[in-house]
Amino acid sequence: MTCLFKKVGLFARHSKPQIVTSLRLLADHLAAQGIGVLIDSDSANADEAGPHQIVERSDIGKLADIAIVLGGDGTMLAVARLLAPYRVPLVGINQGRLGFMADIPLHEMLGAVDAILAGDFIPEDRILLTASVLREDAEVVSALALNDIVISRGGLGSMIEFEVFIDNQFVYSQRSDGLIISTPTGSTAYSLASGGPILHPTLQAIALVPICPQSMSNRPIAVSDSCEVEFMLTRGLDARAHFDGQSHCDLMEMDRVIVRRYRNPLRILHPAGYNYYDMLRHKLHWGERLL
Amino acid sequence: MTCLFKKVGLFARHSKPQIVTSLRLLADHLAAQGIGVLIDSDSANADEAGPHQIVERSDIGKLADIAIVLGGDGTMLAVARLLAPYRVPLVGINQGRLGFMADIPLHEMLGAVDAILAGDFIPEDRILLTASVLREDAEVVSALALNDIVISRGGLGSMIEFEVFIDNQFVYSQRSDGLIISTPTGSTAYSLASGGPILHPTLQAIALVPICPQSMSNRPIAVSDSCEVEFMLTRGLDARAHFDGQSHCDLMEMDRVIVRRYRNPLRILHPAGYNYYDMLRHKLHWGERLL
Amino acid sequence: MTCLFKKVGLFARHSKPQIVTSLRLLADHLAAQGIGVLIDSDSANADEAGPHQIVERSDIGKLADIAIVLGGDGTMLAVARLLAPYRVPLVGINQGRLGFMADIPLHEMLGAVDAILAGDFIPEDRILLTASVLREDAEVVSALALNDIVISRGGLGSMIEFEVFIDNQFVYSQRSDGLIISTPTGSTAYSLASGGPILHPTLQAIALVPICPQSMSNRPIAVSDSCEVEFMLTRGLDARAHFDGQSHCDLMEMDRVIVRRYRNPLRILHPAGYNYYDMLRHKLHWGERLL
Amino acid sequence: MTCLFKKVGLFARHSKPQIVTSLRLLADHLAAQGIGVLIDSDSANADEAGPHQIVERSDIGKLADIAIVLGGDGTMLAVARLLAPYRVPLVGINQGRLGFMADIPLHEMLGAVDAILAGDFIPEDRILLTASVLREDAEVVSALALNDIVISRGGLGSMIEFEVFIDNQFVYSQRSDGLIISTPTGSTAYSLASGGPILHPTLQAIALVPICPQSMSNRPIAVSDSCEVEFMLTRGLDARAHFDGQSHCDLMEMDRVIVRRYRNPLRILHPAGYNYYDMLRHKLHWGERLL
Repeated sequence: MTCLFKKVGLFARHSKPQIVTSLRLLADHLAAQGIGVLIDSDSANADEAGPHQIVERSDIGKLADIAIVLGGDGTMLAVARLLAPYRVPLVGINQGRLGFMADIPLHEMLGAVDAILAGDFIPEDRILLTASVLREDAEVVSALALNDIVISRGGLGSMIEFEVFIDNQFVYSQRSDGLIISTPTGSTAYSLASGGPILHPTLQAIALVPICPQSMSNRPIAVSDSCEVEFMLTRGLDARAHFDGQSHCDLMEMDRVIVRRYRNPLRILHPAGYNYYDMLRHKLHWGERLL
Repeated sequence: MTCLFKKVGLFARHSKPQIVTSLRLLADHLAAQGIGVLIDSDSANADEAGPHQIVERSDIGKLADIAIVLGGDGTMLAVARLLAPYRVPLVGINQGRLGFMADIPLHEMLGAVDAILAGDFIPEDRILLTASVLREDAEVVSALALNDIVISRGGLGSMIEFEVFIDNQFVYSQRSDGLIISTPTGSTAYSLASGGPILHPTLQAIALVPICPQSMSNRPIAVSDSCEVEFMLTRGLDARAHFDGQSHCDLMEMDRVIVRRYRNPLRILHPAGYNYYDMLRHKLHWGERLL
Repeated sequence: MTCLFKKVGLFARHSKPQIVTSLRLLADHLAAQGIGVLIDSDSANADEAGPHQIVERSDIGKLADIAIVLGGDGTMLAVARLLAPYRVPLVGINQGRLGFMADIPLHEMLGAVDAILAGDFIPEDRILLTASVLREDAEVVSALALNDIVISRGGLGSMIEFEVFIDNQFVYSQRSDGLIISTPTGSTAYSLASGGPILHPTLQAIALVPICPQSMSNRPIAVSDSCEVEFMLTRGLDARAHFDGQSHCDLMEMDRVIVRRYRNPLRILHPAGYNYYDMLRHKLHWGERLL
Repeated sequence: MTCLFKKVGLFARHSKPQIVTSLRLLADHLAAQGIGVLIDSDSANADEAGPHQIVERSDIGKLADIAIVLGGDGTMLAVARLLAPYRVPLVGINQGRLGFMADIPLHEMLGAVDAILAGDFIPEDRILLTASVLREDAEVVSALALNDIVISRGGLGSMIEFEVFIDNQFVYSQRSDGLIISTPTGSTAYSLASGGPILHPTLQAIALVPICPQSMSNRPIAVSDSCEVEFMLTRGLDARAHFDGQSHCDLMEMDRVIVRRYRNPLRILHPAGYNYYDMLRHKLHWGERLL
């Protein structure tokens, strides 16, 4: 077997002991074939890694040719943001329910990984978003997101008010629980629960989806992902920006959040036979009668 | 003019100086007719009240035959919860945009109040809800609500999980941003923004409206207001119960919120000519083309 | 076994040969216990009925003490409208998927029917609606409905325009694909697909649910079932009123459809252990994760 | 003034006498500047056209450099489909309410047209769809649409059932009132009333929007406009395909409708200062409070 990828970074959902066993199994399997194995320092300790090299999480992007993630879509999100600057493709092994991105069942792991490393895969590029939080024109936070950037109210229980601009053109002011700025990848996550449309991953689009807007004519809108979206908080004492629901930043009134497509896409390698609509149908139970 | 009401309690939205002037004007007008005037201690100070009697907010319910509120629907909510135990009817004077409940414009105040005090009004009874928050079977908070009891996530950005029982029968488990338990009065407030139905005030009903539920088949349901609704938080570190959006209580996992119809309804006295559907059409712009 | 019901009317979904076998099995079983059996003339022919009495469909209501329906919710709807004037209670045997109303599986038929006839059942009353179509003040059609009265456009593909009045008060004018006027029973049928709320069967309510309204503020509203709802077609060349989706009436511009609660409710007898929320959860897959 | 366009085709919404007067006024104005005027044979008769040349509707595309339409968005749709094969740009004069496409008010007609003919305009390209209806693999109808291709039930009142494929991949089977296949232009028309997302005109996308689907997880999806969408009717006796709501084709069970992006886009010339979001905000009343 020739292998397109010389060095494989391995990630696991931490605090899941059983998954570390699978991680080690995979590492042994790859090393036996002469493939370089780099184990993420947050995913396993020296004991668990055994003979394999542990690498600082922040360094894996520079060293690996491909990353394999054991966990679920949540772990994929975190690793995707980490590796996006380095254009390292991702493979997702799912330990529980099939994910939208982590689409290889654990019991098929070894065979599926072998096939992918041998070049038998379906690549899919997904856009990421980059957000910059500005306070009086100074950037206070910048962050990446593969799913969505959500700006929403906190625990006070009052709606927030904000204005949205696209490419410096005023779009609307709104009073609501918040706004979801979603990629096609995120369109099947929180955005869907808020009434947003499903966007096919190949669509070069960003969706703006209001969360419980007070005005019923404030509806989801999808725009080109070459747009710059600007959110300005005009009223709200407990608003926060959330990045993939995994990190956040408290906002103050008049803060602005500038959102753009990130320069690099994320490449996901799916096993042969992958089909987006099959996945969607499976996850949304489209085959079944609900009534 | 004979007057059905001997003692009138007066409330104003505090921190609005111009409204206190109107309050005084109304007080003088009523006193000149020999009607007893009781001014809420939170609504005006001794200077502003002039010769009129200031009464502790908590005592007005026991003393007044009717209450007149200058403010908006928000002030109405607060006074309604305050007076509900005493069955004192309410009249609402609106200082800004017409409200659903505060439906007398400020410039028609004196004439409209005279007519209502003389018996020329349309009474409308609205149910309230009473909520009891239980922690390990001990009640930690109890509260009233005229609009809604909302249990929702806070600023952490993760959905909460909970179970709902009606009359001790399991209804569903749900993962969402939260749940709105709404009266007909509240059905045109936050509930409407979350996709809930409008419930006519005469309907003896409570609506359960999910907020951004992850499962798309979790839809609003309306049940009889003789039901007992039980909400049990099964997962969520920052959940809160909000009562009319004006007070709240932090929840812990396994806390339960028991919701029932309050024993007394609130009686609102509308000016002659009042029509619920006119109000609805006006507020929802139903007369106008949106497209 | 004492039996509360002396004469049992039997109905089957016609044009389903296998169900007629079950009908005969049930008839034999009942007759063997000395219970009078009346077989609906539309459900079986003389051959199929064997020794049992065939009765004109229109006469069964006058003669039977109870009716048992083999089929599905659709057959239940038809029999319910037929028997409503006579207050004959209904039992539903389901041949396929469990129905909301036909909730006894075919393989449990004999035991379940015995138990119900012996008095071991949970009764549930459901309202019906009566509709009167008026053309220049003359009634051209009147009809009953257990689910809904739907007035909708036909094949021309243009929206229709209409006005709605409740108790002679103007509610709204609307441009849409049509309007659903639904009972609580119908709230889990077409109404749900159009965004209407679920109404518990004990709720004394009627829902008005717009179908694809052009104005986004036209939302479902539920009113007391003591209301009279009037629909007036102001524009539309191919509008039709549908009664439970099983009969219909073409409408002309300026026709009016007057809808009221029917004087008699329908009584459904459920097997012991019946629970509305269990049924709902089962049919809506509320127990399952959709994402 | 130099003019980029030598020959101008003029169209008017027929059966509107007052608009023909405006058409003639415009024709005289253009002719006085030496611009060639071609009047659509369906828009005016010889009397109304006066000295101006009347041209067969089907020939204008070959002869004109630009077309000006007096009417509304409906007239724009019809002319757009007519001229799309010839790549003739369109200008829209609105006689009533501002349209999404017909965005020049009648009272500004002469000045606005002069400016546009002089090159002072904002061009905007919109995709069209081409549909082919196949019966047993033979094409029975083909048609263009600028807004949408809608396949929906007719007057029988029963939902239809169908399957959808994208690029020959199975997407879903569905039971509903129908399916809207919409361009970005159509996303603010019927699609919006059915819960579809707004798609910015520059987005290279097609939206598939179910109409009242029985299964609540059947949600709108947007895909790349390079996709081929195939609709196959599996059940339904009165289904029809509608093209922009202006022409239609009856469908039989097992008929297929193949939808692709049309090879040419439509170019609309907007007056200077045009802004899509302004238009949207104006049409959807986004500036206003609805509650």
